[in-house]
Amino acid sequence: MSTRKQTVRLGIIGVGGMGSHHARSILQNNIPRCTLAAVCDINPERLRQFDAMPEIQQFDDSRTLIRSGAVDAVLIATPHYAHTTIGIDALNLGLHVLVEKPISVHKADCEKLIAAHSSKKQVFCAMFNQRTQPCYQKVKQLIESGELGTLVRVNWIITDWFRSEAYYAQGGWRATWGGEGGGVLLNQSPHQLDLLQWLCGMPTKVRAFCHLGKYHDIEVEDEVTAYFEYPGGATGVFITSTGEAPGTNRLEICGDRGKIVIERYQLSFIRNEVPASEFGRATKELFATPQVWNIDIPVQRGAGEHNKILTNFTDAILDGTPLLAPAEEGIHSVELANAMLYSSLTGKPVEVPIDGAAFARMLKKLIKESTFKKKVKKPARNVDMTTSFR
Amino acid sequence: MSTRKQTVRLGIIGVGGMGSHHARSILQNNIPRCTLAAVCDINPERLRQFDAMPEIQQFDDSRTLIRSGAVDAVLIATPHYAHTTIGIDALNLGLHVLVEKPISVHKADCEKLIAAHSSKKQVFCAMFNQRTQPCYQKVKQLIESGELGTLVRVNWIITDWFRSEAYYAQGGWRATWGGEGGGVLLNQSPHQLDLLQWLCGMPTKVRAFCHLGKYHDIEVEDEVTAYFEYPGGATGVFITSTGEAPGTNRLEICGDRGKIVIERYQLSFIRNEVPASEFGRATKELFATPQVWNIDIPVQRGAGEHNKILTNFTDAILDGTPLLAPAEEGIHSVELANAMLYSSLTGKPVEVPIDGAAFARMLKKLIKESTFKKKVKKPARNVDMTTSFR
Repeated sequence: MSTRKQTVRLGIIGVGGMGSHHARSILQNNIPRCTLAAVCDINPERLRQFDAMPEIQQFDDSRTLIRSGAVDAVLIATPHYAHTTIGIDALNLGLHVLVEKPISVHKADCEKLIAAHSSKKQVFCAMFNQRTQPCYQKVKQLIESGELGTLVRVNWIITDWFRSEAYYAQGGWRATWGGEGGGVLLNQSPHQLDLLQWLCGMPTKVRAFCHLGKYHDIEVEDEVTAYFEYPGGATGVFITSTGEAPGTNRLEICGDRGKIVIERYQLSFIRNEVPASEFGRATKELFATPQVWNIDIPVQRGAGEHNKILTNFTDAILDGTPLLAPAEEGIHSVELANAMLYSSLTGKPVEVPIDGAAFARMLKKLIKESTFKKKVKKPARNVDMTTSFR
Repeated sequence: MSTRKQTVRLGIIGVGGMGSHHARSILQNNIPRCTLAAVCDINPERLRQFDAMPEIQQFDDSRTLIRSGAVDAVLIATPHYAHTTIGIDALNLGLHVLVEKPISVHKADCEKLIAAHSSKKQVFCAMFNQRTQPCYQKVKQLIESGELGTLVRVNWIITDWFRSEAYYAQGGWRATWGGEGGGVLLNQSPHQLDLLQWLCGMPTKVRAFCHLGKYHDIEVEDEVTAYFEYPGGATGVFITSTGEAPGTNRLEICGDRGKIVIERYQLSFIRNEVPASEFGRATKELFATPQVWNIDIPVQRGAGEHNKILTNFTDAILDGTPLLAPAEEGIHSVELANAMLYSSLTGKPVEVPIDGAAFARMLKKLIKESTFKKKVKKPARNVDMTTSFR
């Protein structure tokens, strides 16, 4: 019999919307070998939901929880800025860490956070649960196997993030430079930005147009259109919005050997019998196009993807299973978001990798010069985060 | 009985690919009350197809045809630059004119051409045959009736214009600054640019990224990504390419009251029960979206749209029927194309209306400084233009 540790004692830091959602998953025994050992929140009201469970230790300060000896690992589900400070603290104290997206608000913070992960024995994971969706898993496989050929063009319209005024009014930190460091790019779209870089790699050039408070009474961006250029010559467009309904979620990836479209988690693949570039050079016809196969690849829409990441995190700690979403990779989606804001606010294209320090200075200036007064209105009842996922 | 003129005697100037296609339509009696009375081409080989039809007068110079008295109207299907010069000549001589797209190569030329249309008795029409497609007619109606509400966002991916090297090699004028004044924006996409402005109006700001000779051995643009801002605050993206296969033709128009998608000439309309902006302000829910109706609007894919424009042109001359595509409106698609090239080549956003004289100067400079030598290779057989339409 193995003498290995058989369960992970998890502490959740931040039990607002997402944190308490994850807590419920664990309490419902959805995550084998993971025990909820502690919770932490600076807001005592939020801790009351755990009052009837004395086996779960309560903390009002993350530093105390991290030093309590009560947990092997923490899940950080606080407002974004604290991901960095709490993450560094937990990593420095030797804990395994699972951090909600975005891993940090800006690139320089990501670098600090990642630098704190010095021991390979520590598991450091990010909650990029969308990577577990079967449709994206399949696309990753099609790209990596070469079925799609060289990347030619990518286009993601992800505008079905409609948010009401009531949503933005629920918390003072929401949709402010000081509280979130951005809007739709930092809160709603990190999953798609992560998938985009996971599937297509990072661009070398970004030009974006971010509209601040266009649809809502907020100071940050609620609509973005971005243009990318990739190292191999491919181009890309990314469009997101919280002001549009019904909105669209459509990802199109075109390669030399075909085209993939994912819309509403359905995957279609049009495959060229001959690569387009080769066909175009060889044919004597003026208007001919390569012959194609129209391929429907059946994929189930996943459910419980958050649980898959929690389970993978647990397995990585106990069995050394490779992570689906190493936190280190979380810097890319943050850098993409930063590059878009930087390009838009300076009115110029931005080279990637970006100058993280320059972006941090710009963000600091935005926070300092902000004159925006948020009208906060508490929601009438508890927030059900399950209706927020895409 | 009416004493009105009962037929239009038409002369076609330029009987290459498109011109001879139109000639065949008329000779097959597809255009009631329109007679092919004359043809003109500077290339005598192209005139030979009419040798067996002595009733059709042949000319090798447009000026002679225009002054011959043999025709009431001309259809101009020459390379684009000559649209302006021949169009002005024909209008000055009192003829009715139907001009192929684009009406001219650049805005300043469009203005000159339009200025020559001084008599309201003359019918001056552009070959924007895609306007007759039932799906676009229906969208126009949905927008004009207010069903879609205020424009929020538009996105057109029209990348199914794949062209082979053989296509570009067929003629020395093709895909050169001096011969066409541009690439995919001037040759393949004018229909979509016209429909875009016809449906959504003109933007006030354009930022575009045009790639010159990216996929083909040409000096002009064969891939374009453009971003637009509209007067009412809406944003837009237009993507086109002749280097991609299988390519996409998908138009999405989002309004405050719903979303229209046209893909492969199929129309879908998702209608919000309450306008999104109103719903977002009124709801107390954080993650709710307006209730919707999913509406399929059956439309036939049209056939013979060129004939519809030719018929409408004839009816306008004989009966005063309003034009579906007045040539004056052709300036907008040209201005959009010019704005995209100008923005890309200067690396800056461009305000619309653009400075037509400044663009003309830039184009002149491109022509003057061009060192590109086109490798021309004649196609083995006659060009069948019917395979070129989208």
